[in-house]
Amino acid sequence: MSLNVALVGIGKIALDQHVPALKASPDFTLAATVSRKGSVEGVPAFTDFATFLESRPDVTVVSLCMPPAPRYDYAEAALLAGRHVMLEKPPGATLSEVHALEALAKSKGLTLYATWHSRMAHAVAPAKAWLKDKAVQVAHITWREDVRKWHPGQDWVFEPGGMGVFDPGINALSILTEILPAPVHLKKARLEFPANRQTPIAAQLTFSGNVTADFDWRQEGPQTWDIEVQTSQGHLALRMGGNVLELNGKPSGGENTIMGEYPALYARMAQLVKTGSSEVDLSPMTHVADALTLGERVAVEDFHF
Amino acid sequence: MSLNVALVGIGKIALDQHVPALKASPDFTLAATVSRKGSVEGVPAFTDFATFLESRPDVTVVSLCMPPAPRYDYAEAALLAGRHVMLEKPPGATLSEVHALEALAKSKGLTLYATWHSRMAHAVAPAKAWLKDKAVQVAHITWREDVRKWHPGQDWVFEPGGMGVFDPGINALSILTEILPAPVHLKKARLEFPANRQTPIAAQLTFSGNVTADFDWRQEGPQTWDIEVQTSQGHLALRMGGNVLELNGKPSGGENTIMGEYPALYARMAQLVKTGSSEVDLSPMTHVADALTLGERVAVEDFHF
Repeated sequence: MSLNVALVGIGKIALDQHVPALKASPDFTLAATVSRKGSVEGVPAFTDFATFLESRPDVTVVSLCMPPAPRYDYAEAALLAGRHVMLEKPPGATLSEVHALEALAKSKGLTLYATWHSRMAHAVAPAKAWLKDKAVQVAHITWREDVRKWHPGQDWVFEPGGMGVFDPGINALSILTEILPAPVHLKKARLEFPANRQTPIAAQLTFSGNVTADFDWRQEGPQTWDIEVQTSQGHLALRMGGNVLELNGKPSGGENTIMGEYPALYARMAQLVKTGSSEVDLSPMTHVADALTLGERVAVEDFHF
Repeated sequence: MSLNVALVGIGKIALDQHVPALKASPDFTLAATVSRKGSVEGVPAFTDFATFLESRPDVTVVSLCMPPAPRYDYAEAALLAGRHVMLEKPPGATLSEVHALEALAKSKGLTLYATWHSRMAHAVAPAKAWLKDKAVQVAHITWREDVRKWHPGQDWVFEPGGMGVFDPGINALSILTEILPAPVHLKKARLEFPANRQTPIAAQLTFSGNVTADFDWRQEGPQTWDIEVQTSQGHLALRMGGNVLELNGKPSGGENTIMGEYPALYARMAQLVKTGSSEVDLSPMTHVADALTLGERVAVEDFHF
């Protein structure tokens, strides 16, 4: 039986990813949208969240796609109204607020799912399986993309709480924390802040265990989303944001997932609701908070879209 | 029976607080120090931690008092060598590294105690008891002190990871998170960074539930460490860093602790070791990481000691 879900915050990510995933989902029916401006053709549209919650008790799941800063208030209201909640990444503006949501969901017996879409990329599960019994010697993340291409004119990413280059970088960290056989922690970070902006546009991170990361949002031309891991028993590379696996320099046919990232997230949400459980792993977000706590701040040239 | 303890990092806080507390402790004997420069008269002094761990198996507890940045490596080495570990505040340079220590201590069956000395101030326990069944309407922290007086020439507090004004501010947050009947989370923060420094010298924080904080490290003359809480059933003020309690404007005789802060920390550590348990509450440090993640950064004038 299909569950009714409402999408809240109809912007780029909702239209590009959530709507197609829901239209193809065997588990969910897109039964409402809530957004100040956006809507989806053929789906009842609300502009006020409280009105939606009151008038649509048949919609038992809400999926929150707005930027992280306002997300807490919606998630809290939804849980207090007895709805299961799915959160886009990052799950909130602060770690403490997600801890609070987790406690609230638990106390109400509801599902809270803090999603990390990159963990559902095709090659992540096979990479994890391959690394499981190996000793990691060195690992390096290269995550270089063009913010003008992926967030055109979205000034909020450079405003306080917008996370800057950690908005894509947290995708890399969500994969890293999923595939490594043992956790790492940050030892050092260098953060490049444009003089006219509040969040970093580039970051170089050094973790324990010879794990490093290079995040840059100024990459024009070819884009790079690679993770390379050298082990005592060979070399693994994840390319294209976790979608392509190479073992010892050769493409591997080891793909054992068949869905795209967002269809897989909704399948997981359906499973969590069915089993009455939650999934909230804050380790990628904790690494970002650690970088902003520990990092050296370097001023670089102004950035304009 | 008294436990042998080693103090590691013999600087100002060790000499001012830890040594007198240990000399008066019925639970511990100060059996060694480890420090590049400092020592304590009459106590065997080591300069190298690995040498100490190898040569003094009789010392089952280590208390780490150095600045947070190098603390992880010592804590990990101590736990791997089968010692119980007590950490000065803040418990580390990153949240992830303390999570890692917690997991390590658990796997080895050892005690890890992340201390918050301000929670042991005289009036904190009575304040907590008074607030327990009350509805908080508004709360405000004023934590204004002179960094030149309390950290003379200690440039590390302004270096990456040194936390700046959050070094004293985290004491206020450790009390707040202890006494409030329900948790809060940060909504907004304004951070004042001296143009020549890497960490903030002042911060204004706005939490959920009408809780605010004003931290400033430029306070000359009288120093202020106050927490005021308005409830539906009266007003509470904690003054002098948690040592003085006022209820409805009148001094309260409600003190039910009789020890100083550091003697109380060591008594708690003895109890944790005896019962084979750990105590690691990261909520004060999470609020600081949240402030550095979410905060608006404002440049203020250069600071020189």
